[in-house]
Amino acid sequence: MNIEIINTGSELMLGRVLNTHQRWICRQLADAGWIVTRQLGIPDNGPAIRDAVAEALARAELVITTGGLGPTSDDITRDLVAELLGLPLREDSSIREAIARFFAIRGREAPESVMVQARVPEGARVLANACGTAPGLVIQVPAGRLAPHGSWLVMLPGPPRELHPMFTDQVVPLLRQCLPEQPRFTCVTLRTTGIGESWLEERLAPHLPPLLARGLEVGYCARSGEVDVRLAGRGESGVAVVQQAEALVRARLGESIYGTGDDSLEQAVIRCALQQAARLAVAESCTGGLVSHRLTNVPGASQVYWGGWVTYDNQAKTTQLGVAPALLAAEGAVSEACARSMAEGARTRAQATHAGAITGIAGPTGATPGKPVGTAFIAVASPHGTLAKRFLNSYDRETFKQVTSQQALEMLRRSLLHGAGTPPAT
Amino acid sequence: MNIEIINTGSELMLGRVLNTHQRWICRQLADAGWIVTRQLGIPDNGPAIRDAVAEALARAELVITTGGLGPTSDDITRDLVAELLGLPLREDSSIREAIARFFAIRGREAPESVMVQARVPEGARVLANACGTAPGLVIQVPAGRLAPHGSWLVMLPGPPRELHPMFTDQVVPLLRQCLPEQPRFTCVTLRTTGIGESWLEERLAPHLPPLLARGLEVGYCARSGEVDVRLAGRGESGVAVVQQAEALVRARLGESIYGTGDDSLEQAVIRCALQQAARLAVAESCTGGLVSHRLTNVPGASQVYWGGWVTYDNQAKTTQLGVAPALLAAEGAVSEACARSMAEGARTRAQATHAGAITGIAGPTGATPGKPVGTAFIAVASPHGTLAKRFLNSYDRETFKQVTSQQALEMLRRSLLHGAGTPPAT
Repeated sequence: MNIEIINTGSELMLGRVLNTHQRWICRQLADAGWIVTRQLGIPDNGPAIRDAVAEALARAELVITTGGLGPTSDDITRDLVAELLGLPLREDSSIREAIARFFAIRGREAPESVMVQARVPEGARVLANACGTAPGLVIQVPAGRLAPHGSWLVMLPGPPRELHPMFTDQVVPLLRQCLPEQPRFTCVTLRTTGIGESWLEERLAPHLPPLLARGLEVGYCARSGEVDVRLAGRGESGVAVVQQAEALVRARLGESIYGTGDDSLEQAVIRCALQQAARLAVAESCTGGLVSHRLTNVPGASQVYWGGWVTYDNQAKTTQLGVAPALLAAEGAVSEACARSMAEGARTRAQATHAGAITGIAGPTGATPGKPVGTAFIAVASPHGTLAKRFLNSYDRETFKQVTSQQALEMLRRSLLHGAGTPPAT
Repeated sequence: MNIEIINTGSELMLGRVLNTHQRWICRQLADAGWIVTRQLGIPDNGPAIRDAVAEALARAELVITTGGLGPTSDDITRDLVAELLGLPLREDSSIREAIARFFAIRGREAPESVMVQARVPEGARVLANACGTAPGLVIQVPAGRLAPHGSWLVMLPGPPRELHPMFTDQVVPLLRQCLPEQPRFTCVTLRTTGIGESWLEERLAPHLPPLLARGLEVGYCARSGEVDVRLAGRGESGVAVVQQAEALVRARLGESIYGTGDDSLEQAVIRCALQQAARLAVAESCTGGLVSHRLTNVPGASQVYWGGWVTYDNQAKTTQLGVAPALLAAEGAVSEACARSMAEGARTRAQATHAGAITGIAGPTGATPGKPVGTAFIAVASPHGTLAKRFLNSYDRETFKQVTSQQALEMLRRSLLHGAGTPPAT
């Protein structure tokens, strides 16, 4: 089955607005077993919208449009679609009443101009809008010249706070009734960090052919410092195929898998810390607060995260964490010894079970002989002692910070996997 | 001129990943005067990619693809395009060397599988990838059956940190040479914070009609905690029109404008601090390190940024910043008094000229009577005394942190505009 999404909006073409509808709608549909085959973004102009809808109907059994249903002059999708399908527009009195009520509740009278939203192409189903005035519309386009196999055309308002509840509460149940039953779709995403995409594929690829032959679909998605492995299968047999593939991948990658689905690495760290009743602290130099920022993005972090330091200046490392000036003079701030001292100083001061520390050269300047831009030392002090590692992350400044924060979170997670122990004695 | 963007990626169709390429590429092109006419997202499968590229070439003078150039089995765009255009693939030895060097710098040997990225369709220009291994490719498709008016096909790697510099440094200059000359396009973006989009438009709109009549184009773009005003004009007369509009907007908005173009608020803070030879420190509770992270994203921040604290736990506020336990007991950690005490404690301990402090309730839990989720107190301690403000930022957790960090940076910037003075005496 082909499913196409069309988002209209001239501001999209100017790159002023991020299109979040695509991800959101695709995700809702995928969770229900329907995979979108095309996403199209076009400006708010008549020929572009008409061509896009006509082309999509020619290919797809389900076409979803967003935007262009409101009351202003650039809201033209309703009229264009009615014209394309040869359907007269008629005012729906229940929509007129709903719009009037929407304004009345807000103590205002509805201007007549907004009543254009009460006009409905003949035969369309109306989706009530609980959070705004423009209703959604669903049209069954019969098999014929415009839609060779017959199509469902679903038109939704643009604002996310109106679209989301309408889609979840009305569109998904309707599609379950209208669309032919899909083979069951099983999808597992395993999230890994610390290993590269090509290394990962080389490690997995030799073992996959028997499962691929049974219909397994495999995808890899690399971002800064992490790679997702996506395993999918269709039909009843897909469940077992994906289960077996997951077991195989887990056996090969082990602890490099930090989570599934939408888990983030920082969520995995907080989850481990909660399980271990650990108490965390972080001392950051080159990552400049990013590790703390990521940890505190997780709701509930305050149960295990004590806090941290951003000791950017060397004086801060000394006065706040107790790094010895002699150590800084002898080894430099970007050194394993400094990372260790920062981690141990943080652990003691915070009375933490686990403390991470990061020092390095984010660039573009700051390189010294033997320590190029991108050098980072990360240490974790824990009840099991202090572990330190050297990394070379030769990227632009922001990617350096992202990748280095990822490595620091991963070292914290690995350390937490081996038990929390107790904080240092005062 | 028609310009189409094609983003490939099965993970896009599953709604697993947000497509940020569309906005970014459209924005870069719009700033140079080229407006994209279609954005297409499709899965990584042969027929979808082949159809999409063929259809785009039939319509557009410029087609840009992203993704599918890497080393794994789902990276098929290079091969499909070569086949579609009837161009043989040949290995480019300079790319092979660049890939080998990329791995060598990282202390690893390049697996042979990654060398597939050195294969180039005959006649294609190679765009060097400074941040990864997959080069970009540019093919001039001559006017003919596939491309009625002749097209430029630009193929870019998927990872943003590879795509962005390649696009800015290589693609835009190339397009300026290759594409038919556009009427001169002048565009100034003024970046503001602390004022709402509708307030801003109401303040400017009455004064703009004479300039609009002379061809001025005005756009407003609101994001979390900031609004851009975009002023554009075409042709030779556009230069003067945009200049006059900029003067008008600056006169109306004054210090609310923190920068132009792609300036960030954190860049503006660091710039002010450098001008004043200030020394900055930040103590964060609810923003969890985000303010420090943003400041340290700016190259050269280390010249003025001493460092900071993430005092998430109340004990951290007391032991690290000297907030009195009695104050915390009486007023609570989310209070103006606590924010003031944190800022003053930070200023003294860091020997800073200016110290910011943030305490609040990021949610989803933590509300107390009279202090709903979203409450934030921000203080700045400076040679001019300590200023504190209360905010209500009723958003989800991450947006709360973003908006609150924006307010804290803006209070620091305003404070810095009024002179640095000297740090506190010890």
